[in-house]
Amino acid sequence: MNFKENIKHLVKDELSAMDLVINNILNDKAQLVKDITYHIIQSGGKRLRPILAILSAKLFAYSGNRHINLAAAVEFLHTATLLHDDVVDQSNLRRGLQTANFRWDNKSSVLVGDVLLAQSFLLMAEDNDLEVIKILAKASSIIAEGEVKQLASIANLSISLADYIQIISAKTAELFATSCKVGSIVGRATSMQQNSMYLFGLNLGITFQIIDDILDYQASEINLGKTIGDDFREGKVTLPIIVAYALSDAQEKQFWQRTITELSQSQEDFAQALIIFTKYDIVNKCLAIAENYINQAKENLAVIPDNQIKSILMEILEFSLQRHY
Amino acid sequence: MNFKENIKHLVKDELSAMDLVINNILNDKAQLVKDITYHIIQSGGKRLRPILAILSAKLFAYSGNRHINLAAAVEFLHTATLLHDDVVDQSNLRRGLQTANFRWDNKSSVLVGDVLLAQSFLLMAEDNDLEVIKILAKASSIIAEGEVKQLASIANLSISLADYIQIISAKTAELFATSCKVGSIVGRATSMQQNSMYLFGLNLGITFQIIDDILDYQASEINLGKTIGDDFREGKVTLPIIVAYALSDAQEKQFWQRTITELSQSQEDFAQALIIFTKYDIVNKCLAIAENYINQAKENLAVIPDNQIKSILMEILEFSLQRHY
Repeated sequence: MNFKENIKHLVKDELSAMDLVINNILNDKAQLVKDITYHIIQSGGKRLRPILAILSAKLFAYSGNRHINLAAAVEFLHTATLLHDDVVDQSNLRRGLQTANFRWDNKSSVLVGDVLLAQSFLLMAEDNDLEVIKILAKASSIIAEGEVKQLASIANLSISLADYIQIISAKTAELFATSCKVGSIVGRATSMQQNSMYLFGLNLGITFQIIDDILDYQASEINLGKTIGDDFREGKVTLPIIVAYALSDAQEKQFWQRTITELSQSQEDFAQALIIFTKYDIVNKCLAIAENYINQAKENLAVIPDNQIKSILMEILEFSLQRHY
Repeated sequence: MNFKENIKHLVKDELSAMDLVINNILNDKAQLVKDITYHIIQSGGKRLRPILAILSAKLFAYSGNRHINLAAAVEFLHTATLLHDDVVDQSNLRRGLQTANFRWDNKSSVLVGDVLLAQSFLLMAEDNDLEVIKILAKASSIIAEGEVKQLASIANLSISLADYIQIISAKTAELFATSCKVGSIVGRATSMQQNSMYLFGLNLGITFQIIDDILDYQASEINLGKTIGDDFREGKVTLPIIVAYALSDAQEKQFWQRTITELSQSQEDFAQALIIFTKYDIVNKCLAIAENYINQAKENLAVIPDNQIKSILMEILEFSLQRHY
């Protein structure tokens, strides 16, 4: 078995149990809620966040049921975010399938997202642990604020690497981090271990988003079904553009200003962006930045006792960097 | 002092304290969150829900601070709902002012709504009472599902009075009910009193929405600044249409089918709808239905010991019915 099959095997029972929780909840909802939620959940998401919550509990030999319900809460929260994101980005495709806002409409995506968000909080509340509720409520607040900050950064070529890391820490890495922390709390890890798991998730999530942002400029077989160039066309300033803009000469800077700041683009401009990326070796420069975060994540795991689950988490780190090939 | 001034005077300190909580929270948020939230909160909302939470705590002689923070949570939750509602309804005006989705855009309204929703949960979590958290999380879930059910009822002339009451109970009355219940929990009311306060709020909220739906067909001085005919133009089947459709003759039924089911409307159709309403005395028939709920709400208050606050709640009931004049 390769490590992906390994993970699936390890969390198979818990993911099935989580699916049962999700199905039972959706069963009582309006048809539109069922249709849209299954459309998204079954569109091939990697379910990384619930898997991290489950693994982080198992890492500390937890054997109850709390991590199942909290994994479902995390999955609902994430799904709600995806629904609202696609409305905000006016996306037509996600993972090669029509987005809900495209297949249904914006208002359905907004309202079903709200139902899932509320359901996520209800699951958290029913877990009966004030500390866990507060951590997850705080995470949902950080995520939503990250989305707003990202909105304000669109078309803004002057955002710094630090701004970018702050935005992706909030909108993406926070839920990775919180999933890991909550799992470790459920597993009765020590306070130091809980913090390490939070930071592990944060650094993993940052890497994950950096690679995602690189992949938006890379057509490849792995990347099949995902459209590329979306960020460029929307004027989203992500890591590749930040790094490229800093290195660009006067003429290239004009190109970025026209295509990103003014969003005045012609058919050939995306190809031109890729040429500039190749000239400055942007992909490797971005990967080097991602690698820093992976190394930090490895250090975060150092305080965790060695076991089979920890080895899997180490492998997830290695894989996350290789996703772009 | 009339009773409105009376209420304002009674909850003046608590509302000021709530504003301070809200201001302190918004102070740390992105500019867009501040701009949009102040735009809505200051656009002349009656703040009925936080006032109900505060009054319901004071009804039981509560003297701490919990009701302040929970009132802020309720106000954030309600404001988030308004933001998302206006996106769903594609409204341009609310209380005579431009809606946020019109003045800014849909994506800002969606994301700022998410920030406020998350902030609402954070305030609930920080109140440190699992029972209150569960009640509010459940309410947010019911509200969101009510919005979805309303979406499914658009253009549907066959929805029954019971369907309508179910929808407005969820999307509007639930937050009235929960505000009252939470206030009474904070005030250490007995379990029976808590349930009575929940039902009082529910019946008040149902009346409130029925009157709102009547007002959408009534131009008046009180109604200044609010556009009328929005529900008709959107094909929303509310109480006036449900009652009118049941009484309509064959030709009138054809009129409703064309204008509401097919949403094929000309300039004169709204006036024609009003003529049919007058013919069948629809406003008074709707008011009679609302009166039932007011009478139930009065009965709900019967188990609460008499005091100044209870008198105010009784006056709110009387006023809610008179809003339409």
